[in-house]
Amino acid sequence: MEFLTFTTAAEAARLIASFPVAPPPVEEVPLEQATARVLASSITAAEDIPPFRRSLVDGYAVKAKDTYGAREGTPAFFRMTGRIGVGRAAHIRVGDGEAVYVATGAMLPEGADGVVMDEYARPASDGVEITRALRKGENVCLAGEDVRTGQVALEAGRAVSPIDLGLLAALGFTAVPVYRLPECGLISSGEEIVPAEAIPGPGQVRDINTHTVSGLIRAHGCRVRFAGIAADAVDAIAEKLVSLKGCDAIFLSGGSSKGQADFMTAAVERLGGRIVFHGLNIRPGKPTIFAELWDTAVFGLPGHPVSCAMVVVRFVLPFLSRLRGERAQAPRWSLRGLLETNVPSTYGIEEYVRVNVSDGPEGLSVTPIFAKSAVISTLSKADGYVVIPEGKEGLEAGEEVEVLPFG
Amino acid sequence: MEFLTFTTAAEAARLIASFPVAPPPVEEVPLEQATARVLASSITAAEDIPPFRRSLVDGYAVKAKDTYGAREGTPAFFRMTGRIGVGRAAHIRVGDGEAVYVATGAMLPEGADGVVMDEYARPASDGVEITRALRKGENVCLAGEDVRTGQVALEAGRAVSPIDLGLLAALGFTAVPVYRLPECGLISSGEEIVPAEAIPGPGQVRDINTHTVSGLIRAHGCRVRFAGIAADAVDAIAEKLVSLKGCDAIFLSGGSSKGQADFMTAAVERLGGRIVFHGLNIRPGKPTIFAELWDTAVFGLPGHPVSCAMVVVRFVLPFLSRLRGERAQAPRWSLRGLLETNVPSTYGIEEYVRVNVSDGPEGLSVTPIFAKSAVISTLSKADGYVVIPEGKEGLEAGEEVEVLPFG
Repeated sequence: MEFLTFTTAAEAARLIASFPVAPPPVEEVPLEQATARVLASSITAAEDIPPFRRSLVDGYAVKAKDTYGAREGTPAFFRMTGRIGVGRAAHIRVGDGEAVYVATGAMLPEGADGVVMDEYARPASDGVEITRALRKGENVCLAGEDVRTGQVALEAGRAVSPIDLGLLAALGFTAVPVYRLPECGLISSGEEIVPAEAIPGPGQVRDINTHTVSGLIRAHGCRVRFAGIAADAVDAIAEKLVSLKGCDAIFLSGGSSKGQADFMTAAVERLGGRIVFHGLNIRPGKPTIFAELWDTAVFGLPGHPVSCAMVVVRFVLPFLSRLRGERAQAPRWSLRGLLETNVPSTYGIEEYVRVNVSDGPEGLSVTPIFAKSAVISTLSKADGYVVIPEGKEGLEAGEEVEVLPFG
Repeated sequence: MEFLTFTTAAEAARLIASFPVAPPPVEEVPLEQATARVLASSITAAEDIPPFRRSLVDGYAVKAKDTYGAREGTPAFFRMTGRIGVGRAAHIRVGDGEAVYVATGAMLPEGADGVVMDEYARPASDGVEITRALRKGENVCLAGEDVRTGQVALEAGRAVSPIDLGLLAALGFTAVPVYRLPECGLISSGEEIVPAEAIPGPGQVRDINTHTVSGLIRAHGCRVRFAGIAADAVDAIAEKLVSLKGCDAIFLSGGSSKGQADFMTAAVERLGGRIVFHGLNIRPGKPTIFAELWDTAVFGLPGHPVSCAMVVVRFVLPFLSRLRGERAQAPRWSLRGLLETNVPSTYGIEEYVRVNVSDGPEGLSVTPIFAKSAVISTLSKADGYVVIPEGKEGLEAGEEVEVLPFG
């Protein structure tokens, strides 16, 4: 019932997606550092790739028409007029009934329109016998067949893949313009929180969320600036916030009690910030805060480790993609499977269920992991999560569900 | 037919998997550098996580039995005997009919076995009225409920995930023992190959494979030492090989002509190496070489960019996982979909087909990308690949196939 006063998941996603983000600064990085970086400009081919017609095999460059009808018993005869090695200009012209030997990757001589593989040729006096008809263009890669001059090879806003590096190198790029990695400020707060290296006293626990949040943020291609653990006090939190001014986004990872959340919102407001929402109609993740301070997005993350990680995966990572300059792309496909057991949920709340996925008799089998949201060990064993929409009261065994990955 | 003399895909995988690999040296890295690194020792909990019983909500710690029968009209009355903030020892004991206020994350006082949420409580004179019955253990996380003392929290041979960082921090680890990143030596060879920064002359092309191979190797958590481009000559290749002595694996990325491959095998043999196989019964990727030199694995990769990347993804990355110290794990699930069109293949050859995946009317729809193996731009658009086994002659539209990811 208290959930009714909170922001829905859809509205939260909309508010976060419409939070204004300035285009990130651009820098050049060498190819060997470009994987996973986001292209700041589209890459247009200034030349054809490959730059010339190449043989795809070791064999004989000929005019295809001269091979028509050739077979084992009635081979076609060709005069050998030369040989072209790789890396050299093809100075020979292939005339009717002529063959030129080409190595794989060699430039195709003018006049030829196909290459007969070695295995379909046998030496004859002064020439070669071809025992198989060739299609026009067979075993040849045309100039520009990979990329044509003027074609956009890779679009701005794309995260560069290892394969893309080869394409970029082919086009003569040794460095590419990419967006600077966003810097995310992180504050841990909570009277009960001690750093990982400390021996917790009575009632104290080690800081878990700083490490999962930092890890998820870094794995998503952002830098992390950690401001340390703040006491549960408006002054202490405000001071840490000020130390992170200039970051591209700020994360407050703190306790989950109402009192602790109130310190966070008060600190943001004291510095002139504005709370966009406080409290989400989701489970786990209810005590999430989203605020604006110095035109920067501030996320107040829930204290329970699973809640915290879920909110990061579902609401923060898409925002970080925007900060990185990634162009939003609708996913082409989804991972779907059949639920193994019933999962209860509360009508009116969007719930996230950790799951394991395995091959089942009819496609994928999806097994929910039932554990409290304070229990992080189960999250590190999960393959992904399933969303139960607000408007549903639980999911039933045998129902088809979509599984979303973590991170 | 020539394929009959080559090594089958299954035999190649077996030979690569049985190539002896020494256990990698171990180093300690701080948590913030541990993501994707492979644990060299299992992580055992030296203490319970959480270390004490914690409240999961803001509310009233009570004995559950005292709430039985409580509801809106007939609330149960409790004497308030104190309040426990987070981060503090719970010095109070909860007796029958008593309630202690606890914040989320606070230590549960002795005697209490559950916490009533704020919203089911209302202040009364000298105490609080509870309007809902509580289950024993409700809203409480028990000591050790996340991880128990002595339990293996993370196993040796696991690549650390961002979520694992939180678990490690909870257990008091600020650094973890991981295997050293393998170093992969890389040689490009081929008369026709010029570096990415060069303007190719007639018959020349820029080096594509060095960049895709380096990118795939780095993205798979290995370091790359690039020895440069060698001329097509036994001496030149042997010299580069010697410069890479000490690397954990060596990759020769070269031309695809028989002549170029012969230079590679001759260079390996001149240095005392042994060719394990030369030529695979696969497409693309036929001219693959696997050799042993100075007890180190040497891969001769095909020259066509798609062939080269495919062989890396399918045969090299599993080997690199072993070099990284990753414990082999059978995948729990596979991505399956229905093929959109017929795909021809040759009986007796294992073929790899690049595909795109999208949501279809009956599960995933798998669309083959038809392009020559010299054309790398198609690979950067593919979602994965499908294997056509040796024993099949093509796949048919509507057939269910497994899609494997790249990298």
